[in-house]
Amino acid sequence: MIDFKKAQEIINHKISAIEISREPLELYEPVKYIISIGGKRIRPALVLMSCSLFSEQITHAIKPALAIELFHNFTLLHDDIMDNSVLRRNKPTVHKKWNRNIAILSGDVMAILSYKFIADCPPGVLPTVLDLFTETALQVCEGQQYDMDFEKRTDISIDDYLRMIELKTSVLIASSLKLGAILGGASLTDTILLYEFGRNLGIAFQLRDDMLDVFGDTDKFGKKIGMDIIANKKTYLFLKAVEIAERETKDQLLQLFSTHDLDPEEKVSRVKTIFTQLGIKKITEDTSMDYFEQAVRKLDMVSVPEERKYMLKNFAEQLMEREQ
Amino acid sequence: MIDFKKAQEIINHKISAIEISREPLELYEPVKYIISIGGKRIRPALVLMSCSLFSEQITHAIKPALAIELFHNFTLLHDDIMDNSVLRRNKPTVHKKWNRNIAILSGDVMAILSYKFIADCPPGVLPTVLDLFTETALQVCEGQQYDMDFEKRTDISIDDYLRMIELKTSVLIASSLKLGAILGGASLTDTILLYEFGRNLGIAFQLRDDMLDVFGDTDKFGKKIGMDIIANKKTYLFLKAVEIAERETKDQLLQLFSTHDLDPEEKVSRVKTIFTQLGIKKITEDTSMDYFEQAVRKLDMVSVPEERKYMLKNFAEQLMEREQ
Repeated sequence: MIDFKKAQEIINHKISAIEISREPLELYEPVKYIISIGGKRIRPALVLMSCSLFSEQITHAIKPALAIELFHNFTLLHDDIMDNSVLRRNKPTVHKKWNRNIAILSGDVMAILSYKFIADCPPGVLPTVLDLFTETALQVCEGQQYDMDFEKRTDISIDDYLRMIELKTSVLIASSLKLGAILGGASLTDTILLYEFGRNLGIAFQLRDDMLDVFGDTDKFGKKIGMDIIANKKTYLFLKAVEIAERETKDQLLQLFSTHDLDPEEKVSRVKTIFTQLGIKKITEDTSMDYFEQAVRKLDMVSVPEERKYMLKNFAEQLMEREQ
Repeated sequence: MIDFKKAQEIINHKISAIEISREPLELYEPVKYIISIGGKRIRPALVLMSCSLFSEQITHAIKPALAIELFHNFTLLHDDIMDNSVLRRNKPTVHKKWNRNIAILSGDVMAILSYKFIADCPPGVLPTVLDLFTETALQVCEGQQYDMDFEKRTDISIDDYLRMIELKTSVLIASSLKLGAILGGASLTDTILLYEFGRNLGIAFQLRDDMLDVFGDTDKFGKKIGMDIIANKKTYLFLKAVEIAERETKDQLLQLFSTHDLDPEEKVSRVKTIFTQLGIKKITEDTSMDYFEQAVRKLDMVSVPEERKYMLKNFAEQLMEREQ
C-alpha cells in the first residue's frame, strides 16, 4: 500500500526517465518540455494508489499510469492553443515557446505516445483497459467542446455545467482510479465503485476550485483571484446566482458577464459583492461537500479492509483541504 | 480473394454506415463530414486485400481497416490546418467550414476513434496490431514535421527527401498491407514482405505524383499543374535538378525557388524548361520504377500461390498507371 507522496515520487522518477529517443527533435522537444515543467501528477498517482489497494505488486501499473499523465498533458497542450493561453504552470505554453503548428503536431504525437504506454499492460486486461482509456479520451474532448460552446451560449443550466466539468475534469480522475483497480485485479464491482469515487471527487474538487477562484486567498490558492469572472466564465457560482437572484440583481449579473470593457478589479469586486449577498460561497461549498460525501460513500463500499482505504481517503481530504 | 474495386465497395459501404451517435454535434459533424467527402479508400482497401491473400474470412479485418482510414483522415484534417489549405477533395477544409479550434479538437477525436476501431480486432493479435498502428502513427507525424521543416531548410539531400516521403506517405500504406496480413494469419516473414511491398510502392507512387505535378496532364492528373513549383516545394525533381545542373542553371533554379513574387505561370514554365533540359522527367520515372520493381519483387516472395497475388499486383500497376 502506498500513499500519495510515495506514488507521486514514483511517477516523477519514471517521468524524468522517459527517454524519447526519436527524431525530429522539433517534434519531441515540446513533449519533453511539457512533461518536465511539473504538475501534481494526481492522475497517475491515483492509478498506482488504486492498484495498491488490491495488490502488493504495482510495477505493471506504472506504464499505464504514465499513459494517463501523457494523455492529460496532451489535452492541456491542445487546450492552450484553443484557449490562446500564454502561460501553463508559470512557463510559456508550447504554442508560444515554439509555434502553433508545432503545438498541434507535438500534441498529436503525445496522444499517440499515450497509447504506446497504455498498450504496455498485461495482455489479459488489454482489451478492457483500451476500452476504458479510449472512452475516457473521447469524453475529455467532448468536455472541452462543451466548455468552448458554453462561452457563446446564454442558455446553460446547472445540469449542463455539471455534465461539462464531469467530462472535462472528472472522468479522467475516475478512469485513473478504475484503471488502477483493474490492474490490481479488483472485482468488476470494485472497479466501478472506484470510478464513482473518482467521478464524484472530481466534481467536488472542480466546484471547490470555482469557489476559490472568487473567494480564495491568492497566496494559498496559487492562482490570481477572479480570473473566471474577468473571462465571463459561466461557472456554478454564476449559474446559481442567476438562478436565485431577484430580477434586478440578475440583470446586473448578466450585464457584468456580457462585457470585457469593465476595469477587471472593479468587475471582480462588484460580482463578488453580489455573490456574497446571495450566499453563493456557502451554497457552492455545500454542493461540493455533497459530491465529496457521495465519493467517500463509494470508497466505503469497496470490498477491501478499511485500513487499506486510509491512503485514498486521506488524499481525497487533502485535495479538498479538509485535513482532519 | 477480392480485388481493389470490391474492397473499395466494402469500405465505402461500411464507412457510410458508421454511426457516431455521440454528442456534442459540433465535435462530431466535422468527423462525419471529412469521411463522407470521399477519397479513394486505398489504405483500408489494402488491409482487406492483404487479409484476403491469406484467408477467405475478412470480416474481422473491416474495423481495423476503418481505423486506418480514420487515422489517415485525422492526419489530413490537422495537416490542412498546419498548411492553411482551403480545399480538400474540392470541398472546404474543416477549419475553413467551421473554425480552427473545432478542426483541432475534432481531429483529436478522430485519432482517438481510430484507436476505438483498431482495438476491435481478435484479442490474440491485439498487442501486435496496436504496436504496428502506434509506431506507424508516430512515423506519419514525424514525416509531417520533416515536411514542414524542409520548407525552411536549404540543405536537404535526396536521401532526406526520400526518408520524409517514406514517413509521411509510405509507412501507412505499408502498415495497411502488414495489418491485413497479420489479420489473415500470415507468417511473420510474409507480413514483413507485404510491409516492404507497400513501403516501396508508396515511394514509387509519391515520386510519380511529384513528376505528374510538373509533367502531368491536368485532365488526367486531376490537380492543377505546377503547384509544387509555385509553393517552392523541394521535391525529388528539384533536388535532382540542383544535384546535376551546371553552376549557372543551378543558380537560376535556386533563385526561382526562393521567391513567391514571380508570376506563377511564368515561374512554372521556366522551371519546367530547366527540368526538361536536364532530363529530370526520365530520371524521376526511372527512380520511381526502381522502387516499383523492388515492391513487386517483395510481393513475388510472399508464400502464397502466384494466382492469389494477381489482385494486388494489378492494383499496384493501376496505381502507377501501368496497366498491361
